[in-house]
Amino acid sequence: MLKIVFIPYENFSLVRQSALAVCDKLRLIADMSRLNTLSAVKKAGSGHLGSSMSAMDIVTALYFHEMNVLSAGIDSPGRDIYFSSKGHDCPGYYALLTAAGILPLEKLLLLRRLDGLDGHPDVRIPGVEANSGSLGMGVSKGKGIALGKTMRGDKGMVYVLTGDGELQEGQFWESLQTTAHQGISNITVIIDYNKIQSDKPIEKIIALGDLQRKIESFGWYATHCDGHDYNQITASLAHCRNITGQPKCIIADTIKGKGISFMEGPQALQTGNGLYKWHSGAPDDESYEAGCQELIGKINSQLKQAALPELSLEVFETRPKNRVRLKDTAEKVVSAYGSALVTIGSEHPELLVLDADLSADCGLRPFEQTFPERFIENGIAEQDMVSMAGGLALQGFLPVVNSFGVFLASRANEQIYANACEGTKIIYACHYAGLLPAGPGKSHQSLRDISLFGALPNCTIVEPSNGWETEKLFRWLVESGQGVCMIRLIISPSPRNIVLPETYAVAKGNGCVLKDGTDTAIVAYGPVMLNEALIAADLLESRTCSCAVINMPWLNCPDKTWAENELGRFGTVFVLDNHAPYGGLGDALIKTYMESDILRGKKIFSYAIQGQPACGTPQEALRFHRMDGESICEKIVSQLCLPCPSA
Amino acid sequence: MLKIVFIPYENFSLVRQSALAVCDKLRLIADMSRLNTLSAVKKAGSGHLGSSMSAMDIVTALYFHEMNVLSAGIDSPGRDIYFSSKGHDCPGYYALLTAAGILPLEKLLLLRRLDGLDGHPDVRIPGVEANSGSLGMGVSKGKGIALGKTMRGDKGMVYVLTGDGELQEGQFWESLQTTAHQGISNITVIIDYNKIQSDKPIEKIIALGDLQRKIESFGWYATHCDGHDYNQITASLAHCRNITGQPKCIIADTIKGKGISFMEGPQALQTGNGLYKWHSGAPDDESYEAGCQELIGKINSQLKQAALPELSLEVFETRPKNRVRLKDTAEKVVSAYGSALVTIGSEHPELLVLDADLSADCGLRPFEQTFPERFIENGIAEQDMVSMAGGLALQGFLPVVNSFGVFLASRANEQIYANACEGTKIIYACHYAGLLPAGPGKSHQSLRDISLFGALPNCTIVEPSNGWETEKLFRWLVESGQGVCMIRLIISPSPRNIVLPETYAVAKGNGCVLKDGTDTAIVAYGPVMLNEALIAADLLESRTCSCAVINMPWLNCPDKTWAENELGRFGTVFVLDNHAPYGGLGDALIKTYMESDILRGKKIFSYAIQGQPACGTPQEALRFHRMDGESICEKIVSQLCLPCPSA
Repeated sequence: MLKIVFIPYENFSLVRQSALAVCDKLRLIADMSRLNTLSAVKKAGSGHLGSSMSAMDIVTALYFHEMNVLSAGIDSPGRDIYFSSKGHDCPGYYALLTAAGILPLEKLLLLRRLDGLDGHPDVRIPGVEANSGSLGMGVSKGKGIALGKTMRGDKGMVYVLTGDGELQEGQFWESLQTTAHQGISNITVIIDYNKIQSDKPIEKIIALGDLQRKIESFGWYATHCDGHDYNQITASLAHCRNITGQPKCIIADTIKGKGISFMEGPQALQTGNGLYKWHSGAPDDESYEAGCQELIGKINSQLKQAALPELSLEVFETRPKNRVRLKDTAEKVVSAYGSALVTIGSEHPELLVLDADLSADCGLRPFEQTFPERFIENGIAEQDMVSMAGGLALQGFLPVVNSFGVFLASRANEQIYANACEGTKIIYACHYAGLLPAGPGKSHQSLRDISLFGALPNCTIVEPSNGWETEKLFRWLVESGQGVCMIRLIISPSPRNIVLPETYAVAKGNGCVLKDGTDTAIVAYGPVMLNEALIAADLLESRTCSCAVINMPWLNCPDKTWAENELGRFGTVFVLDNHAPYGGLGDALIKTYMESDILRGKKIFSYAIQGQPACGTPQEALRFHRMDGESICEKIVSQLCLPCPSA
Repeated sequence: MLKIVFIPYENFSLVRQSALAVCDKLRLIADMSRLNTLSAVKKAGSGHLGSSMSAMDIVTALYFHEMNVLSAGIDSPGRDIYFSSKGHDCPGYYALLTAAGILPLEKLLLLRRLDGLDGHPDVRIPGVEANSGSLGMGVSKGKGIALGKTMRGDKGMVYVLTGDGELQEGQFWESLQTTAHQGISNITVIIDYNKIQSDKPIEKIIALGDLQRKIESFGWYATHCDGHDYNQITASLAHCRNITGQPKCIIADTIKGKGISFMEGPQALQTGNGLYKWHSGAPDDESYEAGCQELIGKINSQLKQAALPELSLEVFETRPKNRVRLKDTAEKVVSAYGSALVTIGSEHPELLVLDADLSADCGLRPFEQTFPERFIENGIAEQDMVSMAGGLALQGFLPVVNSFGVFLASRANEQIYANACEGTKIIYACHYAGLLPAGPGKSHQSLRDISLFGALPNCTIVEPSNGWETEKLFRWLVESGQGVCMIRLIISPSPRNIVLPETYAVAKGNGCVLKDGTDTAIVAYGPVMLNEALIAADLLESRTCSCAVINMPWLNCPDKTWAENELGRFGTVFVLDNHAPYGGLGDALIKTYMESDILRGKKIFSYAIQGQPACGTPQEALRFHRMDGESICEKIVSQLCLPCPSA
């Protein structure tokens, strides 16, 4: 059996009240919080361990030594304010808020769950000062908070923690320049310089060079410290507190995964053959237990030295070890995309692949390894990547630009438009499209990408439902697409393998019937919503409603004739959008209805993800938005005024 | 009478073939091109003189001395490639392409006209290598071109000219970092360091500090030169040509408006009381003539010294001097917005105004001067500005964030989303919304802003039709709006003063009837499209079609009851979108129809701006897109199958 263990608040309370020397106390709180972090991520099934661990000592020193927030109160206008710009490190941050008594342990058990703690920080959580999760925005937001304090006459320093990879984002440098000019000095930025990005050393992705020189040249005071040495951390913070008239930056040298030996950067890179595997995701059972044992041993030995009682761990979950999970065997469209890149790329030497430090997540590794000279790693610099793709396209290449949809479609939106105006052809792959996985939270869930591409001139948007269709649609884009081509891909394993009709061939604007029906039809796209559509259709059958399910992968360009033939035969059609209720397939089809002759008493309704995307398990999030099969069935029953099952 | 004069190609040809020393020849070509630039902008009625003049000597040295493009040919794969990242300076660039014989003089006469030369560079123009106009993208695109050359095995250096103000954009620094890491060295960036932004010194907006130190700290080779001294320019270029293994940057000290004494930066700032007035826009008649005389005198004296014949000027336009133009007297909604900021700002001390170096264009000057402590100048750094607004909102302020729609809605899109996720209230003012003015071209025309905001959770988008409604809608946003509030404003003078009914009161989701009718209705918003709607309705009357015109300022949230009452009485309704045919008011109303009971054989059609926005005069652009009153009338006639006038 696997036991997931947590340290309750009382243990922290004892340590905080103890007579330990400052640094010893801080170290103990940090190590205890490391254990809670590890367990929270293990329990959640995902989360960012590496940077939670590298930032832990810095944030501990801030909360339990430097800042006044615990004494002043988390709502006091004069409090010091801390937030993490990268936000990935929130499991560690939440663990510290638990140690401080701001969050109850029960909440930590609900990491990445509905009504629990979001996978990236959210201001609705007590103690959290700002949302984050998309990179490079923190200093800008921090200077706004800092200026707000000054304008209100409130005291308190603003501390912004940044990653190092996120210094590849232009906004970081943009914000350094304005902060210095605007004379905002009640802000201290701390760089968690752990030197590893998502899975490779920063030196291999986009090196930062002489950081201190760079930052000083932007008009900031900059200093270095060892981010795991409490004497150095507290001294640097005290030093910066006394520097006035200039914004301040502490470059803290840290070790990714610090505290659990096999997760620590240098060693982990070696055992991983150059790849760091503890950036995100929960550890396997063995690694979890090994990490626990190491931390518990270290903590208890410190407690013993301090003549404090040993840890009294609480066990919150036990289950059989090494369960086989669906996702280990299920199909992934992103893997099919990765294979298609290699296959189609080998036929098209003009095809280049661009990446913004998400090579593994976006399925690019096979291409990266097969065609290293045609793979361009651009770091976490989406705007630069997209404009660079524009230059490559002007030179006659076919760039395939990759990132998560929420970053690519929005951060680089103007650059995509500028490329579009040149009339060149570029393929944009928006990964992690849609609501799921819902654990990482709003900053990562992409529900606006269709709308962000939709108004571009000469733009085609597709989303495949399975691996086979991924290859076909991508090939269509490469060989027949023009102008702005966007492919939308879910990142999770498919909840079921969508089976397409044997006679189905990809043709622009045309979908296909997955399951026929006579009373009504559901139109959807992508594995997630088609799965829910099929569930809903099955439920409707039991209500004696024969419901067709139609796959429509062309999201912004439905063919009118196809729509007339396939949809026009139903009195009412329902469209499911794995997207916000604006600008998705539903809107496109409604417009097609209005512009065509289908509309003779016929109706079409669209169901989409309303409001901010919920954080939680897939089922929790789908249910919350009433986009799970059961809710969809209920909505259709209500819309069509179907009789009760008993009737 | 005012005469607009141009120097024909033959004069340039003589100079180029002359035995003049290199620097003397370059200086003469540049000064002659300055005259053609001045005249082209005067003839066009708008354009950027200041930076055309400051960059002229650099670009002349590139084309007529350093680069191989004139000898190799503009399509040669091994040519050196030049483009301007800022693009504003294209009048000067076009003048040089004319001097080089690449563009005929006839084209230069069509600056900012349909089928002429776009107000910002476009690759469809012979000799133009990249589109630009939105700032900070150039180095990224340039490194893409440079890498493309290397991958294809082609020779030639890539030269990217940047402004200095655009170094406030984070993407510039983002691209420096990646270029250095990626080892791209066949690129030389030249900074036109004229030290004045749109109308103020860069030191007053966001100072750049020690530029050379900054750029060197990003791993680039950097050097300085006097950007008007041909010995220094050519020596710097030659020097950089020989530096291998590193990307290169020349910081060229220049003078904005160079060549026309009263437009030259230092002097012009003094006479303008600290404001530079020659950044954009055509000079008045007297200034044009004075500038011409000064340049002609200088050129002829150089020609005389070189024993070359005097200029033989061609006169392409004469007209009465100092005509009074409509736009000097017409209403401007942006002025009403500026007044509303002051009035409503004085009642709401929490209201702050943020600007990205477009204070005058966005009507912010009155607020800036009345409440300097609540006006935040953030420079050309939209992402930073928006995230900073997020921080200020978290501190309880109400930020009103301003820029042109095309920049604000797209460049800072992810930052807007991140703020929205925090649930704070922020007002975004998207200026220069819609197709007009069409002279500046695609980079400036904002046809996607509604779609870029539309999918944000809790978002309200409005566009006022006249000054009165501007104040009312802005007040509604300040006092009743929630979450993401977006106000869309045209920047040009209104083509007519839209008269609203005396009984009209602003109410969310409700429009008002400007002109009643019984047969059909046109729904539109904003002064531009309402004017065309009224023209179309008048034309339809002559076809015995009684057409109502309805103003609907709520672009993404039509009220269903209002729609049922006001639109449901017509068999067919036509919506005009001053926006791309995706995501605008038309789509919102079509969806409202489908979701409500209006839809009983009723129809609604939307007309919008298809494809890339055309460049030209307002009437040219409207006509090109078939969105002028006459074309709209024709489309409605055709849709409704109205009889011919003769029938």
